[in-house]
Amino acid sequence: MADVPYFDAASSLPLHPVARQALAAALEDGWADPARPHREGRRARMLLDAARETAAEAVGCRPDELTFTSSGTRALHTGVAGALAGRARAGRRLVVSAVEHSAVLHAAGAHRDAGGEVTEVGVDRAGRVAPEAVAAALGDDTALVCVQSANHEVGTRQPVGAIASVCRAAGVPLLVDAAQSLAWGPVEDGWSLLAASAHKWGGPPGVGLLAVRKGVRFAPARPVDERESGRAAGFENIPAVVAAAASLRAVRETADAEAARLRTLVDRIRERVPELVPDVEVVGDPVRRLPHLVTFSCLYADGEALLYALDREGFAVSSGSSCTSSTLTPSHVLRAMGVLSEGNVRLSLPPGTAEEDVERFLAALPGAVASVRAALAPPAPAPARPSVVPDEREGAGDALTVDSLGKRCPIPVIELAKAIGRVPVGGVITVLSDDAAARLDIPAWCAMRGQEYGGESPHGDGPGTAYRVRRVS
Amino acid sequence: MADVPYFDAASSLPLHPVARQALAAALEDGWADPARPHREGRRARMLLDAARETAAEAVGCRPDELTFTSSGTRALHTGVAGALAGRARAGRRLVVSAVEHSAVLHAAGAHRDAGGEVTEVGVDRAGRVAPEAVAAALGDDTALVCVQSANHEVGTRQPVGAIASVCRAAGVPLLVDAAQSLAWGPVEDGWSLLAASAHKWGGPPGVGLLAVRKGVRFAPARPVDERESGRAAGFENIPAVVAAAASLRAVRETADAEAARLRTLVDRIRERVPELVPDVEVVGDPVRRLPHLVTFSCLYADGEALLYALDREGFAVSSGSSCTSSTLTPSHVLRAMGVLSEGNVRLSLPPGTAEEDVERFLAALPGAVASVRAALAPPAPAPARPSVVPDEREGAGDALTVDSLGKRCPIPVIELAKAIGRVPVGGVITVLSDDAAARLDIPAWCAMRGQEYGGESPHGDGPGTAYRVRRVS
Repeated sequence: MADVPYFDAASSLPLHPVARQALAAALEDGWADPARPHREGRRARMLLDAARETAAEAVGCRPDELTFTSSGTRALHTGVAGALAGRARAGRRLVVSAVEHSAVLHAAGAHRDAGGEVTEVGVDRAGRVAPEAVAAALGDDTALVCVQSANHEVGTRQPVGAIASVCRAAGVPLLVDAAQSLAWGPVEDGWSLLAASAHKWGGPPGVGLLAVRKGVRFAPARPVDERESGRAAGFENIPAVVAAAASLRAVRETADAEAARLRTLVDRIRERVPELVPDVEVVGDPVRRLPHLVTFSCLYADGEALLYALDREGFAVSSGSSCTSSTLTPSHVLRAMGVLSEGNVRLSLPPGTAEEDVERFLAALPGAVASVRAALAPPAPAPARPSVVPDEREGAGDALTVDSLGKRCPIPVIELAKAIGRVPVGGVITVLSDDAAARLDIPAWCAMRGQEYGGESPHGDGPGTAYRVRRVS
Repeated sequence: MADVPYFDAASSLPLHPVARQALAAALEDGWADPARPHREGRRARMLLDAARETAAEAVGCRPDELTFTSSGTRALHTGVAGALAGRARAGRRLVVSAVEHSAVLHAAGAHRDAGGEVTEVGVDRAGRVAPEAVAAALGDDTALVCVQSANHEVGTRQPVGAIASVCRAAGVPLLVDAAQSLAWGPVEDGWSLLAASAHKWGGPPGVGLLAVRKGVRFAPARPVDERESGRAAGFENIPAVVAAAASLRAVRETADAEAARLRTLVDRIRERVPELVPDVEVVGDPVRRLPHLVTFSCLYADGEALLYALDREGFAVSSGSSCTSSTLTPSHVLRAMGVLSEGNVRLSLPPGTAEEDVERFLAALPGAVASVRAALAPPAPAPARPSVVPDEREGAGDALTVDSLGKRCPIPVIELAKAIGRVPVGGVITVLSDDAAARLDIPAWCAMRGQEYGGESPHGDGPGTAYRVRRVS
């Protein structure tokens, strides 16, 4: 465990003490090739078989339905490709929710580029996939549906049981990405395939789980070999697999109690952050959610600067802001939810998180946000700035154009916020921006501020877009 | 290390002490996501970068040419597929040697089934791939050549430098599977891609290396992500990667001295086994070979029974006999070499193997082989058996047909050996067999016994084949 508060459990956890012990033991006894008939090989085989029994029990499947892969990503890639290939006669349509992990969306992209069809099912503002929306997306040509058990960025739990019923009625297999929830308990019944990742529950990296129910058509991508039922080629990583299975069992033993404890801490964060920091939106379902994860976005703040400010205070957190990513596009999850992305912070508390560390975080947050905001926007009302000019097309006074071209998130929203006071109620601000986050954050700002979002239109020949906002209060 | 002699190093090695230390340290500091900007993520990133530097130095490439994969098999699959896809415009022909690891042959099979062309280059009786044979196989449509640095079953080193020259002259990239040799030193210059596997040198399982030289066209199979230059999707296994790199550097420091020591032990085995055990063929190149690996085959012996007999004596060895495999086909390596496969035993000595353990093995071997042979063939000349009948088509006395249909390796060869004395010199034995090993072992027996192999022809409508042997001494 880290010496200082680490609040990025959803990204990766340090090794659980049980995993550490099991790893050490299995490195002694489980290094040989389990396919060999000699003593060392048989010993390795026994360890592998026992680990599969343990993990299968935690997943809720038969041992012969469970394959160990080299990562959760690999489990998802193999599961999606294998189920699609196995159902190729049924059709080539893959249905995924819009908030799946990038590993699923990458698999979907590969399927689309190979000539397959992909339908994305949207979510509500809480990030929830409606079973009715999945039902509406199913067609005669649907080969597979992929839905996560809980979202990795905002913590919203998906109604897997109800979605499974919809899929079963249509005769379509359902793959559940259980990476974020498996530590907390088995996935609701009805899934056909399930994928997970050991380092998310304190197991070692290098281990994913892929369960495929008996009777589900499955054709793994070539090349394969004889290992892991032909579903995961290459020498088995037995020490890591043993550690993964042992730690999954261990975290399950304390999961209910720890979930209740962390849920209280997260409730506290959800309640206090909006009180402590102005202009904050807490996102994700407030009730049907992972116990340890909370996400909020701060208006007028740069997500990356906020991460660094919190890191300097000793808090490791994550962010789905575009400001922190190399792709310059905001999180697809926040985009699908239609919520603010700027100044986004995700806290995911590891088991054992101390209440005082959460209090310390709450004490440090307002200062961190204020310092980041101060670097971008002077707290006092700004004088007229060259970038805010009367819009000649609408007549000076009740229309302004804010030229934010070339400026990155959150500058366009900050300039909009400053300009809104310069038009009368009923007046219109047009923000010109070529930043991808603006498409998400300007409407989100309007919703938070009670102003009217008037839509967007192309601006010029470049990537610029004109966003229109009508002042209504 | 195992308490008792473990002579299956080529299959897998226990964790090197340096790997164990590095793994423990990196589990403390390298569990976080290296893509995260927080302190834990940066620490993980530094460990990953340092491991890449270390491993690249041992491979003899730039760090940015080196990718960590989840296994040697995965490195080969990714390397073959990526190089073929990158060279798709040049052509769709893949040239592989006939003695490559099954991971390469599986990749080749997948390529063939996807519409590609595969040319297998044969080997001589020592298992050596001739550069001239590679040159002859190259065509205008050749996209990639794959050759191992040394063979995993018989230890023969391939002339990689000369083969690389041939490939370079033709403008075709060369992928070298260095799994068996990388612990002993860098691969000869000239390769374009290189693959290896950490558990072969005492690194942990779960780590493969894939090096792709700058300038080599490479298009990894979808789906990919941002990790490992888009060549190995999924969360990096940093603790294992750190341990792999540290142990590779450590084994290299003692590689020359240890190679000289093990070479002496292997020389001793190569010399003594044929003296101690009758009817043995030592296979593989006696000079250009791995220092720690020796393989021999025992006439009239069941390979699986021999493994178990040696295991009971405390010796863990391997075998390429069909008698030990679930596929019922003899090792493709021995088949390509055209050498005896029955009663096959591979010894691969781990670093540190004690001379007295080798002597103990040599002391135990004759009894083990004798006991296995005794269970199959009575040592005294057998009386006339119902399965040996005068061949009416050739006239009784100088022609016999041995009906070994339905009998597994090594029974057909044992029955042939018993029957040969029942025809006069010049007489012909016809062995009917439906066992795949007979195709290899009957000609090999003829070569060892100085009898004339007369070829094969189909027998009946089933899988049976008639093998003809003329007694010449």
